[in-house]
Amino acid sequence: MFKNKLTKKLLPVAVLSTVAFGGLISGVSNVNAERPVNKQVTNNADIKNVIVLIGDGMGGSFTSAHRYLKDDKGTKVVERTAFDQYLVGQQMTYPEDPAQNVTDSASAATAMSAGIKTYNNAIAVDNDGSETKTVLEAAREQGKATGLVATSEITHATPASFGSHDESRKNMNAIADDYFDEMVNGEHKIDVLLGGGKSNFVRNDRNLTEEFKKDGYSYVTNREEMLKDKNGQILGLFADGGLPKKIDRTEDIPSLEEMTNTALSKLSEDKDGFFLMVEGSQIDWAAHDNDIVGAMSEMDDFEKAFKAAIEFAKKDKHTLVVATADHSTGGFTIGADGIYNWFSEPIKAAKRTPDFMAQEIANGADVEATLKKYIDQNVLALTTEEIQSVKDAAVTKKVLDIDNAIEVIFNKRSHTGWTTGGHTGEDVPVFAYGPASEKFAGQINNTDIAKNVFDVLKYDIKIEDK
Amino acid sequence: MFKNKLTKKLLPVAVLSTVAFGGLISGVSNVNAERPVNKQVTNNADIKNVIVLIGDGMGGSFTSAHRYLKDDKGTKVVERTAFDQYLVGQQMTYPEDPAQNVTDSASAATAMSAGIKTYNNAIAVDNDGSETKTVLEAAREQGKATGLVATSEITHATPASFGSHDESRKNMNAIADDYFDEMVNGEHKIDVLLGGGKSNFVRNDRNLTEEFKKDGYSYVTNREEMLKDKNGQILGLFADGGLPKKIDRTEDIPSLEEMTNTALSKLSEDKDGFFLMVEGSQIDWAAHDNDIVGAMSEMDDFEKAFKAAIEFAKKDKHTLVVATADHSTGGFTIGADGIYNWFSEPIKAAKRTPDFMAQEIANGADVEATLKKYIDQNVLALTTEEIQSVKDAAVTKKVLDIDNAIEVIFNKRSHTGWTTGGHTGEDVPVFAYGPASEKFAGQINNTDIAKNVFDVLKYDIKIEDK
Repeated sequence: MFKNKLTKKLLPVAVLSTVAFGGLISGVSNVNAERPVNKQVTNNADIKNVIVLIGDGMGGSFTSAHRYLKDDKGTKVVERTAFDQYLVGQQMTYPEDPAQNVTDSASAATAMSAGIKTYNNAIAVDNDGSETKTVLEAAREQGKATGLVATSEITHATPASFGSHDESRKNMNAIADDYFDEMVNGEHKIDVLLGGGKSNFVRNDRNLTEEFKKDGYSYVTNREEMLKDKNGQILGLFADGGLPKKIDRTEDIPSLEEMTNTALSKLSEDKDGFFLMVEGSQIDWAAHDNDIVGAMSEMDDFEKAFKAAIEFAKKDKHTLVVATADHSTGGFTIGADGIYNWFSEPIKAAKRTPDFMAQEIANGADVEATLKKYIDQNVLALTTEEIQSVKDAAVTKKVLDIDNAIEVIFNKRSHTGWTTGGHTGEDVPVFAYGPASEKFAGQINNTDIAKNVFDVLKYDIKIEDK
Repeated sequence: MFKNKLTKKLLPVAVLSTVAFGGLISGVSNVNAERPVNKQVTNNADIKNVIVLIGDGMGGSFTSAHRYLKDDKGTKVVERTAFDQYLVGQQMTYPEDPAQNVTDSASAATAMSAGIKTYNNAIAVDNDGSETKTVLEAAREQGKATGLVATSEITHATPASFGSHDESRKNMNAIADDYFDEMVNGEHKIDVLLGGGKSNFVRNDRNLTEEFKKDGYSYVTNREEMLKDKNGQILGLFADGGLPKKIDRTEDIPSLEEMTNTALSKLSEDKDGFFLMVEGSQIDWAAHDNDIVGAMSEMDDFEKAFKAAIEFAKKDKHTLVVATADHSTGGFTIGADGIYNWFSEPIKAAKRTPDFMAQEIANGADVEATLKKYIDQNVLALTTEEIQSVKDAAVTKKVLDIDNAIEVIFNKRSHTGWTTGGHTGEDVPVFAYGPASEKFAGQINNTDIAKNVFDVLKYDIKIEDK
């Protein structure tokens, strides 16, 4: 058995083919293989497919708040969310970084994709810079279909750590290159790529969308094209950067649920099964911004995608679904400043995020008219002082100042607390369904996500315990 | 079957004897009974004893931080705490209060003791003021020994909700009266009472310590007396109010572990088994104060008590252990202000809590000398500015101002965040060990703690689902 450490960055084909596999299970080669598979792949009778869903920044305060926000106040019980019945435990998120002990998304995603603790910023590379095999690559070696879905750039830290290798998450162009250039058994390693980040694919030096198309991929840029597409391999990029948040989206941008269902319908055509990673990317982004409206919008988007995955798995019966967070963000708390109440109504009064409203105001729209257009005045009747606070901020014409002023209104009205614009280090919840879901129960480490997936894939790899 | 609602406050004997029991299980009366038991009590072959431990205010950030604080930095792995291997899920903490949706300790403890959601301040009474039967009382009716252990006043909200009934947690004298006056089958209902709160027992109008002694209880007021005592029934009060925090305690005050072991040795003499509630009361108090030194001191105290309970249960094999929190407090976060680090070293440098230091300074001790006496300067070398900030606060001679100034140093140095002096509403972790521990797994409600304990006691009670 080999440690999960590939050699330094080489030609991807060479890299992957140098890894040898022990005979953990006697080799029954998969007769249904549509593409070359390694000999050691066995008949995974119980688990054919694995879906990992990551709510970026989704600590326990977010899943709890989402439940209270969705609660039907007309009933005596608090209704459970789609996540609740699948809660199996929680995981530790600490990185192995020489300078930081609270993780970033890259290090945490590498822990979950490759089973190793590494430094913040690392995209599926170890602390010494060596590339580490990911569960997506392992699944691909076994002839499975693979996919990445996100609401951020599809090259952002979390998806990148499953489908590429880089010393830094910042190198999103190089990560996009990896998605095309890194081969497994002579083929592109990811069949379905859906998310944002067009600017990392369509560049002066290279147009990867054309390259993907040449190799048989569909390339789509809006919801309708995506839903119509019948091809097995697809690149869908619906924004230059990240997608707009759910409540800000226009009709032409798909929801995370729609992207997930699209991925599932394509990937499930593969008789060898599939591996799919789905990220609710912007729970984190909203939380960095201390924006409770945006965070709850993205929780809703992510919950619906999770539900879609569960529904697929329930029908399929050979699919493992795991959902978790990489860390928590913002130091979000339900209640603040000594108040024993957290009100969801003011949050639900918002028809757009503070960012969206701030952008319109910065573009010249009237402050009061904009606020009243996008905040239901029957639910959250703005005071003169609140409107004035945004007018005061708007003097600078800076989106950020205006945005912050609007966010303060929602935070104060809802009694939402925040302690940071960064991440926090508490354990995060883990949800699991399907065969082998019990492996994820109790107190686990983020590296156990990858270790367990390698294990259910019956993929022979040795990972040092850290 | 009857709903869990006793009649309005009557003479306790009458109250309890009016409750009838359905024949859920055919009645095999316990031949080993040392005291009168109800006929329906059956041979609880699997579960004889139940220990419920409550870390007041111990949300997931506290159990995570405690792990990182205790971590041996010399090893590659982060060592697990005594709690970690017993994590089974988490619980919702919301109350049913007409004015507040974040719980207090009284409402949450009533949920866990009686299985009902009620208003904040309620001590085992329903929203209409009716008394509700507690698991401690149910165990007592079955002839079991019972005990309450806490580091707060033993009449404080959490223990009170298991052993008394009152419309308000503030009525700590009346709660102390209940401990003596409320009878089950003609006997006092609690055998072991260990904690603080002497002033609620020794009063101008009544001296309950004398009354307990007359009825055969030992009364002890220091560690040595407690450890020496051989009596089966004991009242131990080690402070007028709450006990000092662990790191501030003198030799004559027992640890929570010692109180727990004392309770276990006495209660386990009862052949019918026992029910014991142990509270780590002051994790919450420290967190209300935004005092990370005190919070971690109390986490350590509570962990050791939990370990003692687990060790007892492992030997006994017929003991269910459940540990959880009632809510989280302070909006504590691991990391703050955009920093991706949480440092435990500055916290461990403290030899006393900020409260303790502030009290000495307020009493006239020199600021700099006091700080340097109680903060290890090799670990947390105080800057001139930090010392000056405490000197500035000391001008007022107010303990609270001085305390706050010292707390700020620890919070800033460790990058600890807080959002409130009150409670927060996120789900809290649940740990369980022993027979029936699986009942507590996954996403549960705080009321499920009581419901499950009633169930394992095979106690027939109907509780409305809320």
